[in-house]
Amino acid sequence: MSPSPLAMVWSEPGRPHQMIASPGVHLAPGDALVQIEFATICGSDVHTVRGDRSAPTPLVLGHEQVGRVVALGDGAVRSDGSPLELGDRVVWSLAVSCGACDRCVRGLPQKCRSLAKYGHERITRGWELTGGFATHVHVRAGTAIVTISDAVPAPVAAAASCATATAVAALDAASASIDLDGALVLITGGGMVGLSAAALAVEAGAEVIVSDPDAARRSFARGIGAIPADPRTEMGNPEHLDTVLAARARRGLLEVTVAIEASGATAAVDTVISRIGVGGAVVLVGSVSPGPAVALDAESVVRRLVTLKGVHNYTPAQLARAVAFLERSWRTVPLGDLVGTSYPLDQLDRAIDDAATGGHVRVGVVPSLGVASALGHQPY
Amino acid sequence: MSPSPLAMVWSEPGRPHQMIASPGVHLAPGDALVQIEFATICGSDVHTVRGDRSAPTPLVLGHEQVGRVVALGDGAVRSDGSPLELGDRVVWSLAVSCGACDRCVRGLPQKCRSLAKYGHERITRGWELTGGFATHVHVRAGTAIVTISDAVPAPVAAAASCATATAVAALDAASASIDLDGALVLITGGGMVGLSAAALAVEAGAEVIVSDPDAARRSFARGIGAIPADPRTEMGNPEHLDTVLAARARRGLLEVTVAIEASGATAAVDTVISRIGVGGAVVLVGSVSPGPAVALDAESVVRRLVTLKGVHNYTPAQLARAVAFLERSWRTVPLGDLVGTSYPLDQLDRAIDDAATGGHVRVGVVPSLGVASALGHQPY
Repeated sequence: MSPSPLAMVWSEPGRPHQMIASPGVHLAPGDALVQIEFATICGSDVHTVRGDRSAPTPLVLGHEQVGRVVALGDGAVRSDGSPLELGDRVVWSLAVSCGACDRCVRGLPQKCRSLAKYGHERITRGWELTGGFATHVHVRAGTAIVTISDAVPAPVAAAASCATATAVAALDAASASIDLDGALVLITGGGMVGLSAAALAVEAGAEVIVSDPDAARRSFARGIGAIPADPRTEMGNPEHLDTVLAARARRGLLEVTVAIEASGATAAVDTVISRIGVGGAVVLVGSVSPGPAVALDAESVVRRLVTLKGVHNYTPAQLARAVAFLERSWRTVPLGDLVGTSYPLDQLDRAIDDAATGGHVRVGVVPSLGVASALGHQPY
Repeated sequence: MSPSPLAMVWSEPGRPHQMIASPGVHLAPGDALVQIEFATICGSDVHTVRGDRSAPTPLVLGHEQVGRVVALGDGAVRSDGSPLELGDRVVWSLAVSCGACDRCVRGLPQKCRSLAKYGHERITRGWELTGGFATHVHVRAGTAIVTISDAVPAPVAAAASCATATAVAALDAASASIDLDGALVLITGGGMVGLSAAALAVEAGAEVIVSDPDAARRSFARGIGAIPADPRTEMGNPEHLDTVLAARARRGLLEVTVAIEASGATAAVDTVISRIGVGGAVVLVGSVSPGPAVALDAESVVRRLVTLKGVHNYTPAQLARAVAFLERSWRTVPLGDLVGTSYPLDQLDRAIDDAATGGHVRVGVVPSLGVASALGHQPY
């Protein structure tokens, strides 16, 4: 018999994670047990550990991961309705949704009235393996499960269920009113969401500007066909946003018609609202922790016919399209390069400290190494 | 031969209008000369006369009117492409657009790069009859002209080219993401735009709340099937917005999914943004003069997946739908009752003073009476 699943449990800021064993997982109909191959640390995990946002504890963090199905409840299915199979390599939605409440019916399963979210829930009896920082996750009925090709590198695949699917949702919000093909798109924040959105927008035929103070992120943006801009430069510098926009205007792309704010910085929210052109769409996706209020000039929003949309998480269909995007583009859009380093599971606290420095877009966690360590082998 | 067209020319705050004659109108191809039957005074006319917004002077104000075609340039057409005919009873778009610039091509003719707007332009040689406060308007090629049935009372028809078409545009902006049928819609501001939007939303199957401090406007709202709310009442009063919303929630309409802010008041902008439910759409349409900034909580917009849209003016198709709405509903939605009183053209200053008191939703101007006066007859 295989050893008990292990999970890293977090209880409060300043206190290290504890590894617990969770033997005897009971799978209800529609559930699946997934053995984690690779997980990544999202910015929101860092926020929680630092105490910047409240969380119900004790909990297992982590909601970006890829793994393989090792046990199945009766009738477990993929998001396309086909039967889930043992050995499937899968990613799954952040949200467990009922599918029946008014919000699910309105197409907002991520805001289900009885929502549960992986990596965000207090451990309860019967659902202990709730987050990605573990050897296994207990994936419950009501979760959108999507298979992903073995060819996609694990660090790329792990991002699907958070950054990539969120980027798909952000572009959907924009393209509801603006045709991306030929549009001038401004993206503020070159993290995993911003760069994934940039890659998707380039693929859709847009001319894309990525504004980020970090040179490595701007370099990545250039590599995937976007135009880098540096929000910290002085006017006159060729990478200053106004200089970049003026150059576009000379080529006939007169106005930014789509802006995606993926940094969460208040200054960047101001930037996208002030730079969006007449009839343009601003998508806010980065503002997921408390920040200062933004001063909104209602008259200007009216006279410019600006659309401002908040996007949080995504639908099952958006997750499926995120996976399809990664499967067709992982060779040309090396998002895995943004995972700068990886740690074994039992060094999760070190991994989160490293992620908090901001030196890497993502830091990885490799449970198989951590299991070895827990069993007395040499740590990574 | 008929007498020369007359127009009321405004030059600066505090100075009365002057009536000028404009003989020998030259119609270019596609132009039309329209004799005004009835005009109404929009809030923006009042703002301009009081000096609350800048305007290029001297100009002829007025952009809400109905009239009859009395002369035609070669090839003048209606917005549906059919030939315009002498005697047609018409309304027309606020905007004269080129149809060829990037914004016209993107479906925003109201923001044309070479835009002209009736009631908003400095008088120039060759285009003197530019506004509705006149016996005639020189309607130029590039304007959307829509015929309107003789059955529609003039005070109702006059609103089509401003309030009604703007209300159609506001509801289009909302219904792009939300099905109005069965939705709970909150409208702040029971002026001509807000009440027209309410009537349109009721027709579309929505449950509509109209919030306005004025009892007569709330009464009109009730008469067209909306639920009145009073933003000035204390909590506990049955017309307090929270009490009204709580009553809806008991009936299963859990969240406001569409809010239309038609008052322009900063407090109302705050109200709609704070009360909109998850995944809901807020349309800002009333904020057309400078006001204090609104404090926007970006995180809340993101987590609630709120859409915020500014709407200013409308497209030719929206004007045509506004006319169709008035033609089918003027008997049951007596918007003409909102025109509290009317003045002859030569008493325009008195009429605007009256409009500025806010005692009537609209004040009318009847050029035929003013012409009589200018010719030496007894004033109205």
